[in-house]
Amino acid sequence: MRGMLHLAHLDRSIAELLADQLEQVGVVFERQLASDLSAVNGLCLHVERYRGKMLRPTLVLLSGLAVSEEPHDEETLNERHRVVAAVAEMIHMATLVHDDVLDEADVRRQGATVNHLWGNETAVMLGDYLISNAFHLCSSLGDPAVNLALGQVTNTLCEGELVQLHHRNDYSIDEATYFEIVRRKTASLIGECCRQGALLSGAKPEHAESLYRYGIALGIAFQIQDDLLDLIGDEDIVGKSLGRDLEKGKLTLPVTHLVSQANPEDRGESLRVLKQRDAAALRDRLRDHGSVAYAQETARRFVREAKSELERWPSGRAVRMLQRMADSVIDRSY
Amino acid sequence: MRGMLHLAHLDRSIAELLADQLEQVGVVFERQLASDLSAVNGLCLHVERYRGKMLRPTLVLLSGLAVSEEPHDEETLNERHRVVAAVAEMIHMATLVHDDVLDEADVRRQGATVNHLWGNETAVMLGDYLISNAFHLCSSLGDPAVNLALGQVTNTLCEGELVQLHHRNDYSIDEATYFEIVRRKTASLIGECCRQGALLSGAKPEHAESLYRYGIALGIAFQIQDDLLDLIGDEDIVGKSLGRDLEKGKLTLPVTHLVSQANPEDRGESLRVLKQRDAAALRDRLRDHGSVAYAQETARRFVREAKSELERWPSGRAVRMLQRMADSVIDRSY
Repeated sequence: MRGMLHLAHLDRSIAELLADQLEQVGVVFERQLASDLSAVNGLCLHVERYRGKMLRPTLVLLSGLAVSEEPHDEETLNERHRVVAAVAEMIHMATLVHDDVLDEADVRRQGATVNHLWGNETAVMLGDYLISNAFHLCSSLGDPAVNLALGQVTNTLCEGELVQLHHRNDYSIDEATYFEIVRRKTASLIGECCRQGALLSGAKPEHAESLYRYGIALGIAFQIQDDLLDLIGDEDIVGKSLGRDLEKGKLTLPVTHLVSQANPEDRGESLRVLKQRDAAALRDRLRDHGSVAYAQETARRFVREAKSELERWPSGRAVRMLQRMADSVIDRSY
Repeated sequence: MRGMLHLAHLDRSIAELLADQLEQVGVVFERQLASDLSAVNGLCLHVERYRGKMLRPTLVLLSGLAVSEEPHDEETLNERHRVVAAVAEMIHMATLVHDDVLDEADVRRQGATVNHLWGNETAVMLGDYLISNAFHLCSSLGDPAVNLALGQVTNTLCEGELVQLHHRNDYSIDEATYFEIVRRKTASLIGECCRQGALLSGAKPEHAESLYRYGIALGIAFQIQDDLLDLIGDEDIVGKSLGRDLEKGKLTLPVTHLVSQANPEDRGESLRVLKQRDAAALRDRLRDHGSVAYAQETARRFVREAKSELERWPSGRAVRMLQRMADSVIDRSY
């Protein structure tokens, strides 16, 4: 498993604690998906290979730890953190499976996608099965407030995707609309992971809110980096089909910048390149117009915003790791 | 709205009560789906047109009423019944939207499908949005047991669909496998509607269990009738694309009967007709081999089984309506 964090560079004790907790999250995840039907189990085993960065579970755990920086962190985290972490990862996995159908992608995490192997129908149903199991697992906590919060977040996430589809091939949308989509489709779940992790450790709502804002800013930076990797990443390193945003007429931050900046003639040429799906010409134009640099700087701004939320927390090992996670979101090449 | 029941033929007072309650269920449904995004609202308005038979909400309400047959039924039903009824209909609606993607169907309830109008991507996401909202609405009850039961049922429903896809174009599967699929993909939600309706009215679990069994048997009969309509129905009356089961290599009860009955030579001819997707030849063979009559008789058997579960209940107006509903499941031509 290729984690978000280069754990070796960190405080050994918390790195080991986190690795141990993530393994337990994996156990909760697999136990939930175990079916009495072998055909279903085979599909779930394939999907479990998608678990990679474990960004969302890691944020639930670290936010839980950040609330009480004590020598014995083990006791701060309980089964409820691990269940919410597994629920968040399962929701994320469902969106990956359905995104691959939407994007007609063939490769995910260096392996074939579900739709490529078994067809779109199975991918649609498997995604539904994952969403359903996520809610079922969440219900096992017996805490309606958590169910309500996670249900609200998946509503928001789907709304983000629907608005994005509504604006497909619409290169006139402005940055505000771009951020509205990203906030909903990507940042909302990441922010909620932070808030729930903190609440489960007994944080006051207003304190949990600060970690929520950290997660929202981190999520936006994460999505901008995803946009950049899809445009200028290396498919072998990223491990999934690239260039899909252009193919599917999805608006990304660099492209929004490119289209909004140019003079009318220049803008016409940009639109022509976009409509022709000419990836090489688009890359050149984005570089020439400073749109890549602009997106990179915007991502850095959101990382700074995320880290500024951490300043109000006592600096302990978990908070230092949250700071590093914010940096690692844009330092990654996969 | 074309309901499951010809209300005019029934006891006027309970017919009016039910019509009034279903209208309130519709209000809960629409309120839940109201979004601050106009693009999302437009899609939901389209989907609300799919609400037709209202079979599942009707069963929640009638099962709730059956528990205490009192003169003032109005007081037996409360907001919790209406919320669970709306949740069940929303889950059902989500499966319709995703089924239309799976079946590549163009027509649903005499109108164009979501996938036909806005593409598969939007249909996948809209289905997700409906599932998510169903769980969110269910969580608003603040009762973890209901969330857990509904989550379990959607897991089962998806498993049924996944096993069906796994066996696509596999004409060697036996009746036991057919019933296993139908029990999961169709009957499980219908049975749970009956159980939850009863539990919300204070029924003891063992009594609610009897209504659950009623719903399971009714659900199986309902699916067999759906199989038959897809084969020999009239598209103008049914109001959706027909012949899809054959097109998509989906096994139905009449076809299972046809393939299992014939002598080797005859069986080879049946398989040839199935592989060639020759609908007219298939219809002739099904009639000649008594496979249509067999499926009709099997559906009647499940209707009898459903009604026998009602015998232990004091015969009041709600129970009499539940009896009629069982009959209407196979008397319908749409």
